[in-house]
Amino acid sequence: MATVTIIGAGAMGSALTVPLVNNGHKVNLWGTELDDEIIHNLRNGMPHQKHKCNLPKEVNTFYADELDKAMDNTDLVIMAITSDALQKIFKRVVPYLHEGMIVGSVSKGFAFNKNDKIVILPKVLEEVLPEKLKNKINFVVVGGPCKAIEVVLQSPTAVTYSSNDIKSADFMKNILITDTYRIETNTDVVGTEVCAAMKNAYAISLGIAEGFKKKNEYPHNNTKSALFTIAISEMISLVNAMGGETESVIGLPGAGDLEVTGEAGRNKIFGEVIGGGCVSSKAIEEMKKNDITVEGYAAIKFGYNLVKQLESENKLSLKDMVLLNALYEIVYNDKPAYHMIKDILQKIY
Amino acid sequence: MATVTIIGAGAMGSALTVPLVNNGHKVNLWGTELDDEIIHNLRNGMPHQKHKCNLPKEVNTFYADELDKAMDNTDLVIMAITSDALQKIFKRVVPYLHEGMIVGSVSKGFAFNKNDKIVILPKVLEEVLPEKLKNKINFVVVGGPCKAIEVVLQSPTAVTYSSNDIKSADFMKNILITDTYRIETNTDVVGTEVCAAMKNAYAISLGIAEGFKKKNEYPHNNTKSALFTIAISEMISLVNAMGGETESVIGLPGAGDLEVTGEAGRNKIFGEVIGGGCVSSKAIEEMKKNDITVEGYAAIKFGYNLVKQLESENKLSLKDMVLLNALYEIVYNDKPAYHMIKDILQKIY
Repeated sequence: MATVTIIGAGAMGSALTVPLVNNGHKVNLWGTELDDEIIHNLRNGMPHQKHKCNLPKEVNTFYADELDKAMDNTDLVIMAITSDALQKIFKRVVPYLHEGMIVGSVSKGFAFNKNDKIVILPKVLEEVLPEKLKNKINFVVVGGPCKAIEVVLQSPTAVTYSSNDIKSADFMKNILITDTYRIETNTDVVGTEVCAAMKNAYAISLGIAEGFKKKNEYPHNNTKSALFTIAISEMISLVNAMGGETESVIGLPGAGDLEVTGEAGRNKIFGEVIGGGCVSSKAIEEMKKNDITVEGYAAIKFGYNLVKQLESENKLSLKDMVLLNALYEIVYNDKPAYHMIKDILQKIY
Repeated sequence: MATVTIIGAGAMGSALTVPLVNNGHKVNLWGTELDDEIIHNLRNGMPHQKHKCNLPKEVNTFYADELDKAMDNTDLVIMAITSDALQKIFKRVVPYLHEGMIVGSVSKGFAFNKNDKIVILPKVLEEVLPEKLKNKINFVVVGGPCKAIEVVLQSPTAVTYSSNDIKSADFMKNILITDTYRIETNTDVVGTEVCAAMKNAYAISLGIAEGFKKKNEYPHNNTKSALFTIAISEMISLVNAMGGETESVIGLPGAGDLEVTGEAGRNKIFGEVIGGGCVSSKAIEEMKKNDITVEGYAAIKFGYNLVKQLESENKLSLKDMVLLNALYEIVYNDKPAYHMIKDILQKIY
């Protein structure tokens, strides 16, 4: 039996308590200041707001000011924080880490490192380790198609754990794997992380194609599937340029996660609204009003600028990323979606 | 301007009249004996039954007994016949062919050759050519995500034309390409054909995952996406074992067409019924009553036996095709779908 501390009590962090409790581990779920209400509800036997259902009663919950108790004697830390706050929160966790410890991360996205370069998330975690822990903490990142609620409900799920150190990935796998939460491990951290971020961007394009149905009054399944194929192809180019492997893109982290993200969720809905004829800036305004964050919106800008960064290093060219470029124009410059999408199919095929 | 004869007035054959007429070609649409009503309606200005809308008025229609007129002076023949009847109908077309002619085929599936071996469709077409035309007719096969009605409605679409002779594929592409019907060409006939057939089989598994929602009262998107990934992986194994290329599987013919086929259509619906708890034999009985053919049902058996055939040639092993094997058991032996699918995720991950 291990002690596992989950940092962040949002949808994914809390969902992972289910396989952990099923495997008999001691599970500490720590909430940030933004999670106070979630922790309060869980402590009082009420459902988790995001999941609308109870978590296993064995889960130990901790408020933001109880981090020391949550980290007491822990064997595995899992960061489950949104990408924009990940480094800030991880800084608070660092004092409790010791040499050889394994830190998992289910956060998805890109970030800027201290030199203002766009990097995958583990890089900004490594950056804040003190000298004595540099290269002494093994990070494991998580990818693959995984709606959190379905982990809670124990629907058959398969995900990917990647680490530079395969033993660390296997260690975390052995702690979390159940008969419904299945895990493959590999060392392609770059492939897994880039897919995890970019699938949100490309899922917006799938949503846009769905939205054309509203605009034109018939489904555009052919368009959607062509975009799906282009997305896979561009993710391969991007992952390879970053030093990652094609296998991750055609596996669970890429094709698998893009499939699930294009089916449902905020990225798809945002795309659908644009495809239906609403300009992006209006759609974003509306979503901000309702306090809805669209991860793919930020991912498109990160991806676009990352390609430019890679272009300056002669590793990739923006003109090979026709769909990403079009998404940037549609989403950040209010270019007309139908015209742009029709146009890129003409460019590519 | 070319003269193009389409053999078969079903959904796909009649859909292709739209890009052809848009490009100013003379278009002859010939119906088999089963298409009499379709031809009758079209001649009388009524909508095509399958599409519920009119075809371009420039299309010349021909009844089954008017094949000689339909084939008069034609530059390109496109076979648009269901796979089970393809060879039989093609035999009637052969007398009108001459050396150097190009024959396209939008039929999808496998067939038995004269030695009772499972082969891709162009093989059974080649088989019935008379000696003087052997290797003198160039076949072009069509793959990729393409709902016929969306071609009629001119929704942006991208497909793949494959031929051993790239010039033939390009010739046919130049005749059909429009600003919304986009075409890529390559020489991977095997990859395109195997994907075209097998995506119907694997789409049933995606439908099954959708059906779990009915059974368990919550969506199984994680399961569906894991199955999507496994399907891609198994199609790569099968295509490679047949001598085809991975690129086709991760491109339009494989991932693209699987995506669209898993979204809607009879294969998906059949899977959904099974995933919802109905055993396969009952579902098939019901569909037969309503005269509904599920292409993937036959494709699963063809695929299963093809793998066995390849196994005897030491090119592939059935134990590497876990999902296809499970689909065979579910669909032909009424094995319980939920149990089988949960089980294969455990086997693979």
